[in-house]
Amino acid sequence: MSAAVDPRTGEALPLVAADSTEEEIDAVCARAERAGAELAAIGRYGRAGMLEAMADALEERRDRLVETADRETALGAQRLGGELTRTEFQLRLFAEVLREGSYLEAIVDHAGPTAMGPRPDVRRILRPIGTVGVFGASNFPLAFSVPGGDTASALAAGCPVVAKVHPSHPATCVLAHEALLAGAGASGLATAPVSLVFGVEAGAQLVGHAAVRAVGFTGSLAVGRLLADAAAARTSPIPFYGELGALNAVVVLPAAAAARAEEIGHGLVASFTLGVGQFCTKPGLVLVPRGVGGSELVEALVSAAGAVPAGVMLGPSIASRFSERVAEIAASPGIAVLARGGSPTLEGSASGTPAVVRADVGALRGIVLEECFGPMLVVATYDGAGELATLLDLLEPALTATVHAEPQDEGEARDVLDTLVARVGRIVWNGYPTGVAVSWAMHHGGPYPATTSSLHTSVGATAIRRWLRPVAYQDVPEQILPEELRDFPGAGASVPRRVDGMLVLPG
Amino acid sequence: MSAAVDPRTGEALPLVAADSTEEEIDAVCARAERAGAELAAIGRYGRAGMLEAMADALEERRDRLVETADRETALGAQRLGGELTRTEFQLRLFAEVLREGSYLEAIVDHAGPTAMGPRPDVRRILRPIGTVGVFGASNFPLAFSVPGGDTASALAAGCPVVAKVHPSHPATCVLAHEALLAGAGASGLATAPVSLVFGVEAGAQLVGHAAVRAVGFTGSLAVGRLLADAAAARTSPIPFYGELGALNAVVVLPAAAAARAEEIGHGLVASFTLGVGQFCTKPGLVLVPRGVGGSELVEALVSAAGAVPAGVMLGPSIASRFSERVAEIAASPGIAVLARGGSPTLEGSASGTPAVVRADVGALRGIVLEECFGPMLVVATYDGAGELATLLDLLEPALTATVHAEPQDEGEARDVLDTLVARVGRIVWNGYPTGVAVSWAMHHGGPYPATTSSLHTSVGATAIRRWLRPVAYQDVPEQILPEELRDFPGAGASVPRRVDGMLVLPG
Repeated sequence: MSAAVDPRTGEALPLVAADSTEEEIDAVCARAERAGAELAAIGRYGRAGMLEAMADALEERRDRLVETADRETALGAQRLGGELTRTEFQLRLFAEVLREGSYLEAIVDHAGPTAMGPRPDVRRILRPIGTVGVFGASNFPLAFSVPGGDTASALAAGCPVVAKVHPSHPATCVLAHEALLAGAGASGLATAPVSLVFGVEAGAQLVGHAAVRAVGFTGSLAVGRLLADAAAARTSPIPFYGELGALNAVVVLPAAAAARAEEIGHGLVASFTLGVGQFCTKPGLVLVPRGVGGSELVEALVSAAGAVPAGVMLGPSIASRFSERVAEIAASPGIAVLARGGSPTLEGSASGTPAVVRADVGALRGIVLEECFGPMLVVATYDGAGELATLLDLLEPALTATVHAEPQDEGEARDVLDTLVARVGRIVWNGYPTGVAVSWAMHHGGPYPATTSSLHTSVGATAIRRWLRPVAYQDVPEQILPEELRDFPGAGASVPRRVDGMLVLPG
Repeated sequence: MSAAVDPRTGEALPLVAADSTEEEIDAVCARAERAGAELAAIGRYGRAGMLEAMADALEERRDRLVETADRETALGAQRLGGELTRTEFQLRLFAEVLREGSYLEAIVDHAGPTAMGPRPDVRRILRPIGTVGVFGASNFPLAFSVPGGDTASALAAGCPVVAKVHPSHPATCVLAHEALLAGAGASGLATAPVSLVFGVEAGAQLVGHAAVRAVGFTGSLAVGRLLADAAAARTSPIPFYGELGALNAVVVLPAAAAARAEEIGHGLVASFTLGVGQFCTKPGLVLVPRGVGGSELVEALVSAAGAVPAGVMLGPSIASRFSERVAEIAASPGIAVLARGGSPTLEGSASGTPAVVRADVGALRGIVLEECFGPMLVVATYDGAGELATLLDLLEPALTATVHAEPQDEGEARDVLDTLVARVGRIVWNGYPTGVAVSWAMHHGGPYPATTSSLHTSVGATAIRRWLRPVAYQDVPEQILPEELRDFPGAGASVPRRVDGMLVLPG
């Protein structure tokens, strides 16, 4: 494993660990299987307590975590502090999910006569799928990395985690891992439920390892697709949940442009430059209506974007890829550069300068419609509902789509919503796609290429479903059944269930 | 497409249709997209009515369907009549699932303050994934073919279906399709929600077609894996739900063998010879304890199996593959043939003769532990709990595992259950795995190679989840939201929901 780099200075940071060997990965996977047995043994309430202890242990290390992550990623103390709060919040949400118990999808069908003849007693529950491999992203060292939604939801499900350390923030990974193990230890676990492996080769071996039963991934389309293909090509294929990013179009309807031109222009700049544009939900394209409102909106956007200084990106290679991409798009036919932000504030840093470009309708294709990781926004103008529909048809599926509309836009807004909802995982209304709330209802996903598995989410309470598979028990005696499936479950095992077709809440 | 064969005579039946051309498949997929819009427009209640009308239309054609299917498959009028009843039952179950509405997994999180700061209003619901390709199996012409669990659950979800006609029962497919369209027409649909394509090439094109968003498949491991790989290798990969069959081990514990030797022996014979052993849930291996009970069980098994006549299998190629497999296993080291059933009753038929073989512990590997499609059962004897555990470790994941136990076996039964539950989709207690009840709780699936996707089922109410993907609506106005997500849904749109973390049943 090569050393990480300080993005602010370009200097190499101390090497954290050597690449994991095949033997080390075998040992880590064997340990994970033992941890899986312990996670099952402590039960739902035990795991809920463990997740809360992990949140506490992360909080105890807040200053060191934020400082370490900032040195490795340059994301800034404020953003990283918020990210850590988010991760702790998510761990506590899964504790709530575990105690509530609906996630088990318990169903009881008693034996009895049916139109098909007598039916046996059949009871269904979800069980952990086994060891989960987790690949975090460069842009969320605390929320989509060793700690984060994948790890929290997998542990909640009862699945041990083997995390591949991200090469751009290894020290953060090691420190966060120490916190997770402290939480596990405080909850009485003897075996580490989360382990780390280091190096590109280790990542590939993890996806192919017989003991690994599913993978969670957040990162680029190129790497995600490579690993997804490897997961599918295994002798025994496994689910691969890859969140690969998206263009995240924003559609401004005419009355909204007329009513809120400046507000939307400024809001878009705040959103596409947030975190130096390094969010998978960054808006990458805005479609504005031809006319006065649209022009004013673009004016406001351009003037605000020009005032945003360059920011330090996650690393020199990400920054240079961003600069190259902006240059390539700017040189494409039908593209005009409308605004560039201020120049770099630090010499030698991996800086990214905000860019706004206008694309003629004919230029909306190829790289102009692909995700650009960094603070760039493409603006295009549409002339009427017909042209807007044509432009929306050009878009690939995405994580989000945003609509700005006023009540007068409602007719058109319904058509636009119908089109967008068929190809994204989240619709944002009169807002901005950056910022993914952690809650029961949140869905963070979308049809390929937004993710490799559009049926599941990587954020929110339902993220746990990725790591669970159903098992049915036919005529199994009460005392051998999982407690939640018994006719008379103990107090702690009383969960919402469907009994003979009827949904029943616990007394 | 070559003509199907009458399995009883070996004679070719009239050719039903030529292979579909690429242009025809494009046209069928384009029509399916239009049908998808109609399925959405008629809503949950409209689709429920349509499924019931389809069940009625199948029932109206009962005699012709059973007769046609019997000519093509030789499965017999009784079995096929039951299969048709099952399919109609399943269509009506999904009508119930639709009206009940829990399958939408509706979640409402109102805007409000959180530990993370203010949260927007976020609401989540499941939406149809799009056009579904369905590949039926030779052994269920009415329940896992053009009509059946895949088609019923996909239509319920709001997904149009393009079904690849099975080459061994094309006339049955065409007749069943006519019934489904009659039901759709009676429900006011203008566009066919189910279409057929013919030929091997058409099947491959279907899996690769841009308009197809998911595939349901029931059939062999070889073909299933080939198509699953093709689905994963698409430019835009799609979920492939393949049910590929399994060995379905039966474990008899000592007290059960002592108490019910004859009953279990006879029960096993009835199960493994049912439908000439052509069930994906056929028990293929029984592990009996060393000792008097085990010996008596094997004696009863052998004597009952010897009295079962040969039966006509689904076709000559299936029958000859079965005979070759039995011969190959019989010739393996450590294998002794214990019983063969009676000889063929019809000259020239595709007959399969029941076979019971004993395998030494050392012979339990390779083809002896693979699914054998047809009436064959492998018997092995274990000596104590330790050896039983060793043998169970040799087994690949499966659709089912069965345990026969008496209360005195309980300690051992718990250990065996723990081992088995980690590698199958359904545990059967003191019963037999053939016969998969259609109900809310049923799970028909299992880790690979039992299926290509262990997270979902192809039988029972939850089979609908395969064709649905979540969408979150952030701050979308009440009147534009899907009705089930509104604060004040109409009477028909009132479904069980999670609201601000609490599960709420409709008034």
